[in-house]
Amino acid sequence: MSDDQGRKRSRAGGRAGNQARAGTAVIDQMPWRIPVLPDAPVEPLDAEGVQRVHSTAMRILKEIGIEMLNPEACEILKQAGCKVSGTNVKMDEDFVMEMVRKAPSQFTITPRNPEREIILGGRHMVFVNVSSPPNAWDLERGKRSGDFETFKEFMKLTQYFNCIHIAGGYPVEPIDIHPSVRHLDCLFEKLTLTDKVCHAYSLGAERVEDVMEMVRLAGGLSHDEFEAKPRMYTNINSVSPLKHDYPMLDGAMRLARRRQPVVVTPFTLAGAMAPVTMSGAVALSLAEALSAIALLQYISPGCPVAIGTFTSNVDMKSGAPAFGTPEYMRATQMTGQLVRFYGVPQRSSGVCAANVPDGQSMWETCNSLWAAVQAGSNMVYHAAGWLEGGLIASPEKFVMDCEVLQMIQRYCEPQTFATGDDDLAFDAIREVGAGGHYFGCQHTQDRYQTAFYSPFLADWRNYEAWHQDGAVWTAERAHRMYKQILADFTPPPIEGDRLEALTRFVAQRKQEGGAPTDF
Amino acid sequence: MSDDQGRKRSRAGGRAGNQARAGTAVIDQMPWRIPVLPDAPVEPLDAEGVQRVHSTAMRILKEIGIEMLNPEACEILKQAGCKVSGTNVKMDEDFVMEMVRKAPSQFTITPRNPEREIILGGRHMVFVNVSSPPNAWDLERGKRSGDFETFKEFMKLTQYFNCIHIAGGYPVEPIDIHPSVRHLDCLFEKLTLTDKVCHAYSLGAERVEDVMEMVRLAGGLSHDEFEAKPRMYTNINSVSPLKHDYPMLDGAMRLARRRQPVVVTPFTLAGAMAPVTMSGAVALSLAEALSAIALLQYISPGCPVAIGTFTSNVDMKSGAPAFGTPEYMRATQMTGQLVRFYGVPQRSSGVCAANVPDGQSMWETCNSLWAAVQAGSNMVYHAAGWLEGGLIASPEKFVMDCEVLQMIQRYCEPQTFATGDDDLAFDAIREVGAGGHYFGCQHTQDRYQTAFYSPFLADWRNYEAWHQDGAVWTAERAHRMYKQILADFTPPPIEGDRLEALTRFVAQRKQEGGAPTDF
Repeated sequence: MSDDQGRKRSRAGGRAGNQARAGTAVIDQMPWRIPVLPDAPVEPLDAEGVQRVHSTAMRILKEIGIEMLNPEACEILKQAGCKVSGTNVKMDEDFVMEMVRKAPSQFTITPRNPEREIILGGRHMVFVNVSSPPNAWDLERGKRSGDFETFKEFMKLTQYFNCIHIAGGYPVEPIDIHPSVRHLDCLFEKLTLTDKVCHAYSLGAERVEDVMEMVRLAGGLSHDEFEAKPRMYTNINSVSPLKHDYPMLDGAMRLARRRQPVVVTPFTLAGAMAPVTMSGAVALSLAEALSAIALLQYISPGCPVAIGTFTSNVDMKSGAPAFGTPEYMRATQMTGQLVRFYGVPQRSSGVCAANVPDGQSMWETCNSLWAAVQAGSNMVYHAAGWLEGGLIASPEKFVMDCEVLQMIQRYCEPQTFATGDDDLAFDAIREVGAGGHYFGCQHTQDRYQTAFYSPFLADWRNYEAWHQDGAVWTAERAHRMYKQILADFTPPPIEGDRLEALTRFVAQRKQEGGAPTDF
Repeated sequence: MSDDQGRKRSRAGGRAGNQARAGTAVIDQMPWRIPVLPDAPVEPLDAEGVQRVHSTAMRILKEIGIEMLNPEACEILKQAGCKVSGTNVKMDEDFVMEMVRKAPSQFTITPRNPEREIILGGRHMVFVNVSSPPNAWDLERGKRSGDFETFKEFMKLTQYFNCIHIAGGYPVEPIDIHPSVRHLDCLFEKLTLTDKVCHAYSLGAERVEDVMEMVRLAGGLSHDEFEAKPRMYTNINSVSPLKHDYPMLDGAMRLARRRQPVVVTPFTLAGAMAPVTMSGAVALSLAEALSAIALLQYISPGCPVAIGTFTSNVDMKSGAPAFGTPEYMRATQMTGQLVRFYGVPQRSSGVCAANVPDGQSMWETCNSLWAAVQAGSNMVYHAAGWLEGGLIASPEKFVMDCEVLQMIQRYCEPQTFATGDDDLAFDAIREVGAGGHYFGCQHTQDRYQTAFYSPFLADWRNYEAWHQDGAVWTAERAHRMYKQILADFTPPPIEGDRLEALTRFVAQRKQEGGAPTDF
């Protein structure tokens, strides 16, 4: 692989390593940090409302049941005392709640670089790159199918931006790599181009096992060390309404048994695969999530899990999915309340329906990101780079979204609303008096460098200065920026023996044929 | 005036009148309504923090005092027991709080069309058009100085969109009209092209009196009827730090004496005319606002007032003002808490620093609009059409912002998070079961037409459909839409005698020379 030289050069750290850790100088970004939300979440439901949504979810699981298209899962739940009839599994509230209570309310995930450890739970919030679009779009090349080169570009952006905490799923599906070995090539790139927390798709036993093994090798861990704490995670989606398919449950159980986190995220579009009413869609979504979590906690009590929400609605005229709508915001907030009630970490998303990184894309994305914040989300998927309802990943949008994510990080800093004597600044107000200005006073001089959020993409110059400099709109500025970031990118260091082990593993598994495919 | 025909034709109502009231068919917009925020506001400060900001504001007024460049105001406050030394006025907490407590916590403003009455206070929220930019910008004509034709265009947009509740200041300054008569021409257009609540600039006695008289004539009111309740309002800005100028105080006192509302909005950019620390900037802003309100309540006890916030920060590298930043959001929320503490309605804004209606403009505007919502703002100024830190009004941005405002209206509807049996939809969930879909079920059929927010500008089609239809980005779509709205615009009906009285008054005042000018 042509990139190997760069990786080997940088493994000793040094200037290149430091640069990679701090973010290179293309932009002046905020340092790595995990924001902690200081605000009380926005809670549209009162206590009775929470109870009513919960009771509906419980009734769904008890009276209607859920399809589990995985014989092993059905067998286990039968042993656990659930009513299993064919693939239909019914469980009662006592069982579900007993199982959910075993789950930790907070846990860490430690990637190969321990400085990139993340916390999931409490008031912590982490951001994940865009995951799983089949296509890419940028200003120069337009829309096209995902490929391996583009996959790598997004991995570099994921690593570059300090406000992205997790290298989630594939930012684009690299269709030029055969599906039998795609996960091997993708994870090799992900584990060497980034040093952040990784994700495994639950798409078959071999893929899940391969990814766990690669994360273990990249971390230089023994099998016991790997299982001693969360090192990576998977995210599974139910097939709404009320169905969990085989590979998702299989992958989830494999991770749970090795104490690796599972995020369960039903994809319930109100009016299509969920009721047209939002609280009904949320109740359905929670029933689906809780059923999987109950299974995992029965198998591996206390294993780390989280509940995700992906409840939005369709446009009833066209059937098109809508994102970042008022209904989406309320569903996210309601789910936040219920997930706090269940006491596990919660996941939401930064999403939009727009096709290009224009005004619409930003109002929809801002709506969904602020809903995530207001809901008290612990993990925000697709936080940078998502377009067209998840069918497109865009590097311009990635850069634009990172500006918003940085502002959310800054918003969470207590400095922005501190009321110490120095903050209230009475002495400075007396010193400046009436009609003066604060530029020159000591109170300002002592603080001006860190007093305010400093953007890397927003252009705050007046119209004339902006116009004289080419009148460049945001998407075009983001385009230039992403290209410069890629041109200057230095991969994070990785120890030579780990890189060797990874390389050997990929070669061996490719020789064995990789994972079986259906076609 | 060439438009008179249209106005007279429409005064009888009928189809044209109904269309104007409901919004014409160019877009399918939401009906007129005043949103009521169901959420608890976001409150970054704890009780002690609120007390500390309040105490600092009180200390500023007691120990530093404020410049009141209006001899009448100084004389009145001297009589009220304040320490007045030249133009410096010092007031103590007991006096300020005694006066503030006289102010109503909520009031209505009734324009010439009583169906457009607005409520200011409580959990009600109203949106005001962009006000006071000197320039206009649109995709076709670029940036140019404001003129009367453009002023009228914005008045039509203001009237057209049901989510705009108030026709605030001049959306652009019409510099082709001589300042001595500008207010006469502008108010004539405002009062005939719209039937919404109007505003008077406090820029000299004659202008203020003329506008009050024109609002009275347009409403067909006696002098007693005019003063019986709020019919219009003014907004005054202090000259921060710590100065109120002559005409602002003069205009405010004139309105207060006739029981018309005064919004006091200090413009405190942290790091420039306010401390570099946000709570200090908020305390300064509140001191300035409260001093004016104390004056007005002393003159006219119980007169309607509101406190506005316009606290943001400058970019410390360039001195450029920043809007929609994390610091801006926190300042807005903190001010919201303090204004609730004082028990009067609060005003905030929808603002950005972007020069064109691109991605940046929308993330900055969304940040400021969501901060307004979270702060529990009752009146959101510049809610549609603002660019370049208030130096540009843009029709495209106006249309784009109205989409966001409609979403905020929808977000406030309790239907989005209702948990009645019909909302929780257990029966529908049982009926559809596992693997089915909800498109066809009766529960969906009964609700699909009103279940979700329906956008007028957002394009939710997939990329291919959008691309085949010309691949039009948001700003360009908004451009086409605003032109169609203007082309199809029908002014609201106005009774012939009122129109005649207005016309006569304008002609007479022009003959008298209008208002004196300084140049």
